[in-house]
Amino acid sequence: MEALLRGFPSGPRRRSATRPLARNLKLTIEYDGTNYCGWQIQRFKKLKPSIQETLEKALQKILQKKVKIIGSGRTDAGVHALAQVANFKTNSQISLDRLQKGLNALLPDDIVIRKIEEVDSRFHSRFGVRSKVYSYTILNSDCRTAILKGYVYFYPNPLDIHLMRKEAQCLLGKHNFQSFCARGTNIKDMVRTIKRIRIKKTTSLLFTVRCSLITVDIEADGFLYNMVRNIVGTLLEIGRGKFHSGQLKKILYSHNRKFAGPTVPAKGLCLIKVNY
Amino acid sequence: MEALLRGFPSGPRRRSATRPLARNLKLTIEYDGTNYCGWQIQRFKKLKPSIQETLEKALQKILQKKVKIIGSGRTDAGVHALAQVANFKTNSQISLDRLQKGLNALLPDDIVIRKIEEVDSRFHSRFGVRSKVYSYTILNSDCRTAILKGYVYFYPNPLDIHLMRKEAQCLLGKHNFQSFCARGTNIKDMVRTIKRIRIKKTTSLLFTVRCSLITVDIEADGFLYNMVRNIVGTLLEIGRGKFHSGQLKKILYSHNRKFAGPTVPAKGLCLIKVNY
Repeated sequence: MEALLRGFPSGPRRRSATRPLARNLKLTIEYDGTNYCGWQIQRFKKLKPSIQETLEKALQKILQKKVKIIGSGRTDAGVHALAQVANFKTNSQISLDRLQKGLNALLPDDIVIRKIEEVDSRFHSRFGVRSKVYSYTILNSDCRTAILKGYVYFYPNPLDIHLMRKEAQCLLGKHNFQSFCARGTNIKDMVRTIKRIRIKKTTSLLFTVRCSLITVDIEADGFLYNMVRNIVGTLLEIGRGKFHSGQLKKILYSHNRKFAGPTVPAKGLCLIKVNY
Repeated sequence: MEALLRGFPSGPRRRSATRPLARNLKLTIEYDGTNYCGWQIQRFKKLKPSIQETLEKALQKILQKKVKIIGSGRTDAGVHALAQVANFKTNSQISLDRLQKGLNALLPDDIVIRKIEEVDSRFHSRFGVRSKVYSYTILNSDCRTAILKGYVYFYPNPLDIHLMRKEAQCLLGKHNFQSFCARGTNIKDMVRTIKRIRIKKTTSLLFTVRCSLITVDIEADGFLYNMVRNIVGTLLEIGRGKFHSGQLKKILYSHNRKFAGPTVPAKGLCLIKVNY
């Protein structure tokens, strides 16, 4: 890397003015969010590192240069990702395979780079997003679990999954989702488009024993702060009969967070796809 | 509980001589072994608690009395269990449902009591074992995982699973398994009977994304120290072509640990069933 840069003007200002960074690299990242404060670097008091800073430190070690990566968006503290997307620009000529192996060797075992691709210089992880898919996993059983505890939300109340599915239909399409947005955010535009909601029973096969799970997958062009966790919390109130049929629609149109259900825990949530 | 004991002679010697503890309770326990030194209480320097002492402390809180539980056998540090079995005797008349709920409320989230049954006074978790089933999970993919990291052993080399299955047949039946026993144990009788070995490809469905796993399930009337992990380590050497066809049989009959493959990590191992 250093060898490659020899012979180029070395002042950072001059270089950036005359020669844009040559390669745009797209990362697909899996992480277990348990031990992180979320994707983004936190400015206030922090107890845990962020995924982004952990990645940037590893990249800096390999590329011998400070690197700023752009994520498709934040994930909150404790939220997992199977396929978060980020990109960064670099002049390094390191092979993608070597970079991936190097990063995975340096990164802690709860972060892994699943793919690195060289993409068009105009690709932008955040601005280019067409939609994202989040999946929320509920353990709907009378006994909590020890083995999958970090990835599921234990919810013992019996659930009417058919009713949950039927009621959820009103969320599809373009709406103001303020009712499902955590208070205290300073975002003005609360309009998002939900393209798909899938609620299904599934079984985990870890260690050959089946375990009854319910997953709620939501695809949207964007998500407000805590939106998935608040929608799932509301759907659970419907499923267990606390909210009546038709109430979800009223909650949606109220544009008021206080009418929706509780925020379910972060550990059941996983970003599973980002579409461009 | 205290009320129940009032009116009975209170000296422990006299009581045990005249009145055996009335109820024999059988526990089925799931645990994530990551943060434990194993099932058994360690006498030497310990950094992590044992599953057994954690359970005994919770039982003591509920029953207001010291309780000694008997496990079906030890599991090593880091090994998981979906259905470890233990029993203990008590005079308490607490309902099984209340006891289970109480224990699960007191226990940390990586230990859970899946079932409590009242059993015949002669039932003994260790001496009554007919067989145990352990399952070992291998992530056979070119990329490690962040999400399931605590439950699988990442093994990227391509594996000939058919050969592994074929070669494993020689382990079935009654043999001296010294070649697969960790050195330094003072057990004299190394003869055990393997009743079943099943090696299969499976997929985990956590978060709706499939992930290629290979599981090795072994059922035996008993296991030597590290026996499953050493057998799996040897099977992997066969699967990747380092050990040739027929070599496993030679290793078995050598009665010498040094010829077998390496010990695979504890985190992939789970006790899934104890048969009585």
